Amino acid sequence: MWQTSNNKLYRKFEFNNFSEAFAFMTRAAMEAEKMDHHPLWTNVYNTVEVWLSTHDAGNVVTEKDRLLAERMDKIYGK
Amino acid sequence: MWQTSNNKLYRKFEFNNFSEAFAFMTRAAMEAEKMDHHPLWTNVYNTVEVWLSTHDAGNVVTEKDRLLAERMDKIYGK
Amino acid sequence: MWQTSNNKLYRKFEFNNFSEAFAFMTRAAMEAEKMDHHPLWTNVYNTVEVWLSTHDAGNVVTEKDRLLAERMDKIYGK
Amino acid sequence: MWQTSNNKLYRKFEFNNFSEAFAFMTRAAMEAEKMDHHPLWTNVYNTVEVWLSTHDAGNVVTEKDRLLAERMDKIYGK
Repeated sequence: MWQTSNNKLYRKFEFNNFSEAFAFMTRAAMEAEKMDHHPLWTNVYNTVEVWLSTHDAGNVVTEKDRLLAERMDKIYGK
Repeated sequence: MWQTSNNKLYRKFEFNNFSEAFAFMTRAAMEAEKMDHHPLWTNVYNTVEVWLSTHDAGNVVTEKDRLLAERMDKIYGK
Repeated sequence: MWQTSNNKLYRKFEFNNFSEAFAFMTRAAMEAEKMDHHPLWTNVYNTVEVWLSTHDAGNVVTEKDRLLAERMDKIYGK
Repeated sequence: MWQTSNNKLYRKFEFNNFSEAFAFMTRAAMEAEKMDHHPLWTNVYNTVEVWLSTHDAGNVVTEKDRLLAERMDKIYGK
């Protein structure tokens, strides 16, 4: 589901409405804080787009990005 | 699912973990703000307990409480 | 503080950390839901960028955008 | 500000409105998740009451409770 381009992992998540999209963001925000690894993400209404890369590694995709991606998938999948 | 006692609607919601419980609260908070009608609620880990009554009506159960209860059920049901 | 370009209102909000940025988004999300008018916004760590326009009016800036902008400013100002 | 009674730390936090109270809860929720240590808390409109104790230590107050209390105070203080 995640695509790699320009040294970033990218995925678009879609929901039924804003409320569901923002609840996803709230849960993902907790994971991001736990990992101290924060996404670049954009929301409009029922859509959340996420780009993941690791600043401290020179803005490339690292294991931290893959782990946060997995956790977001797990939240989305429920 | 909701019980009425002491002039309040009461329901206990259970989730798999804190993250799911707090996402529910975030969505319910948006509904509460939209209605300008706020619950008394308690959370610990994966459990959210809610008591609804209408202060302006003398702390009894009104249509506003039944509507917020329905909206919480709908969020929970998903 | 808000700039108008390409028929959108734009503002960048900066915070001390992710936690403050996401708390701002949570409060702004409640206002957006109340108005049934949702922003396009992007967050990375302590920064939130917002673009406002009204889809139903043909993607131009309307009174709804100015009102949501004011409410975001008020939340930010605290 | 925190009182100890019945082997719990207790504090009542007050805000201007529900939106501010819930933003506080969102930030505190992130800290709780980071620590994997979750409060018992009750909210109604602009008030948040918190009781902290450590289940795994036999429901007494431990260093984890004091640390979460400090982090909540810091969030509140801003």
